Amino acid sequence: MQQQQFDQLTTAEKREVERQLHLYMDGAEEVIPPEELRAKLAKSILTGEPLKIKLGLDPSAPDVHLGHTVVLNKLRQFQENGHIVQLLIGDFTGKIGDPTGKSAARKQLTDEEVRRNAETYFQQFGKVLDQNKVELHYNSKWLKRLTLEDVIELAGKITVARLMERDDFEERIAMQKPISLHEFFYPLMQGYDSVVLDSDIELGGTDQHFNVLMGRHFQEKYGKEKQVVILMPLLEGLDGIEKMSKSKNNYIGIDEDPHEMFGKTMSLPDSLMKKYIHLATDLEAEEKKRLVKDLETGAVHPRDAKMLLGKTIVNMYHGSKAAEAAEQQFKKVFQQNSAPDNITAVHWQGGGTVPVTDLLVTLELLPSKSEARRMIQNGGVKINGAKAESIHADIALEHGMIIQVGKRKFVKLQMHQ
Amino acid sequence: MQQQQFDQLTTAEKREVERQLHLYMDGAEEVIPPEELRAKLAKSILTGEPLKIKLGLDPSAPDVHLGHTVVLNKLRQFQENGHIVQLLIGDFTGKIGDPTGKSAARKQLTDEEVRRNAETYFQQFGKVLDQNKVELHYNSKWLKRLTLEDVIELAGKITVARLMERDDFEERIAMQKPISLHEFFYPLMQGYDSVVLDSDIELGGTDQHFNVLMGRHFQEKYGKEKQVVILMPLLEGLDGIEKMSKSKNNYIGIDEDPHEMFGKTMSLPDSLMKKYIHLATDLEAEEKKRLVKDLETGAVHPRDAKMLLGKTIVNMYHGSKAAEAAEQQFKKVFQQNSAPDNITAVHWQGGGTVPVTDLLVTLELLPSKSEARRMIQNGGVKINGAKAESIHADIALEHGMIIQVGKRKFVKLQMHQ
Repeated sequence: MQQQQFDQLTTAEKREVERQLHLYMDGAEEVIPPEELRAKLAKSILTGEPLKIKLGLDPSAPDVHLGHTVVLNKLRQFQENGHIVQLLIGDFTGKIGDPTGKSAARKQLTDEEVRRNAETYFQQFGKVLDQNKVELHYNSKWLKRLTLEDVIELAGKITVARLMERDDFEERIAMQKPISLHEFFYPLMQGYDSVVLDSDIELGGTDQHFNVLMGRHFQEKYGKEKQVVILMPLLEGLDGIEKMSKSKNNYIGIDEDPHEMFGKTMSLPDSLMKKYIHLATDLEAEEKKRLVKDLETGAVHPRDAKMLLGKTIVNMYHGSKAAEAAEQQFKKVFQQNSAPDNITAVHWQGGGTVPVTDLLVTLELLPSKSEARRMIQNGGVKINGAKAESIHADIALEHGMIIQVGKRKFVKLQMHQ
Repeated sequence: MQQQQFDQLTTAEKREVERQLHLYMDGAEEVIPPEELRAKLAKSILTGEPLKIKLGLDPSAPDVHLGHTVVLNKLRQFQENGHIVQLLIGDFTGKIGDPTGKSAARKQLTDEEVRRNAETYFQQFGKVLDQNKVELHYNSKWLKRLTLEDVIELAGKITVARLMERDDFEERIAMQKPISLHEFFYPLMQGYDSVVLDSDIELGGTDQHFNVLMGRHFQEKYGKEKQVVILMPLLEGLDGIEKMSKSKNNYIGIDEDPHEMFGKTMSLPDSLMKKYIHLATDLEAEEKKRLVKDLETGAVHPRDAKMLLGKTIVNMYHGSKAAEAAEQQFKKVFQQNSAPDNITAVHWQGGGTVPVTDLLVTLELLPSKSEARRMIQNGGVKINGAKAESIHADIALEHGMIIQVGKRKFVKLQMHQ
């Protein structure tokens, strides 16, 4: 049937299907399965009906950072081709909280908090998405109406073994750590949301692999067309190791001040540059490729590429003027105080990660840890131009890293193994 | 606290607690735990509040047989001491049926069918129970009102590992046979029923071990006093092997005709006599003990003991006149036709189990299997005085077994190893 639909298309339409397919698969970690995405695109072009692309959101954490924009940028591509985004606020689970009371993190939210958080999402997402092509859905609308009878029907459509395949469940079983039965409901509900929304596609990070596949599973069980699943890579944060998140304080928030945003981008480890270029910018596919290639061949200096990355990111969230200004100020600071080439180089034996206060004292930039703490709290310490925010931060040392204390004191690390 | 309550009792009251405790534990396979039963009895005597004894019933199978009376007789003991029986009709699950559609047995019942079946139970149970001390409850009353939020709260109070301990789940996991998630809800619901009913005690057969313990589990989780669990032995049917059940056609129904009831009792294997005396009669504890002892010492002939058992059982369900008449008729048949002592003995090599038609032909009581089938269908074949009901029955051969065809033909088996 999929092939039949495809055969009804004109040559130009077929080319359009392939163009979109190529676009959506670009940068994705996994598309499950590509043939169905092709068939859905063909059907959409035949019928003129846009596809519905679902993204589920946790209503408890509305601070949007570049990590989130990996999926948002992908959603934007769908919108640009006429498709509709379904933002699904998981307010039902948010309102329930954690019935075992074990997870303090999962605190119970009021209706008012959920609504406010959803608005914050919507407003922040507006910086990436076309708000005219976004539907906002709250899953409490249908989930709160489910009765025990409905729940038993839903539960009758999946086996215990299938649920236990989820990585974290499997791990806990292996380690004999308890799984409370209610935890099995979260994937069920996520799947059921797709049944209700008739989603064509669901997006998620690779860590959502299991949950996002639930939509396919339950849509099929309820006799509906299965959604395609697109899994996007996870973006590591400024530390270069952990997934970007607010709790790890390794993030670039999309609401942050342009200078902060630029400075934080400049503090990125070189090793992450390519990934950020691919996943966190709105550059054209061709531009991305060229920039990455230039980096590899040495045709562009890593610092210049990073400046371009910073400028591109600031431009996305604050516009071109702010991007220009952020770049200028960053350059000025370095030129005014002492050109980067003139910074004192300090030699560092070893490597790894060092608490920021230890680093400042060891480098003799400050006389004591308490002075170091005070200076950080006053905003007087910068690492690669980005303000050090926390006195508890651990710094992943890097060759060429520039550490600044106050307006004039700079050192540059020379790493030795 | 339990000890404190007990200490407040007078000596006579303490004796009463011990008397009841002894009575209820007699014949039970397991009481979980006896100390709590003692404490509940003490509290009941102190406060004058009767205990509430729950029995859950499947609304799909209202044909009551002696197997059911094992728990009913125990319930009757509680009633005789002033306590209240809670009959819980599991109509919610009955109305849902099996969502996977796999189990044809678990067919969906209408409200009307459930109500009719419940009435049948109530009327038949009236032969054992005092209907004035019975509360009839339908669990759909509260279960149909549960929302997904309630279900998640309930599910948050138990772990997946705990549920998988149930024997049949454990087996299926070991054999990699699927368990549908909805199956986990049945024990949850049974436990929740006890929470709603504030049951003090729940009765069940030993095969209900896991499900009945759910009441204790959830009552505790909901901050209530835990019910005591009393597990009664399962009664084997006329074949002496399988648990008595309608589907195995090895049962004595409590609605059966007195002569049929008496005859079926006479067909019991000798090996089951003691168990039936203990579990299926309303004889006083002392009488039971004496009869069993007389059997063991040979002071009473097994056939006479079986006649007494038959008479006792018929008396329980049809009164003393019918019991007398059934005994007389049974005796008359044997005396009229030929005294049991005069029956032709046939020697049988081997043993085990033989299809009834094969048996009749081998013993030359009938010339062919088709004649044997016809005679059985016409009700003309009796084994130990009980009519052979099915042409497919397998007969467990026994030394001294009397096989009768028509009015006059009798043989008695002489077994040889």
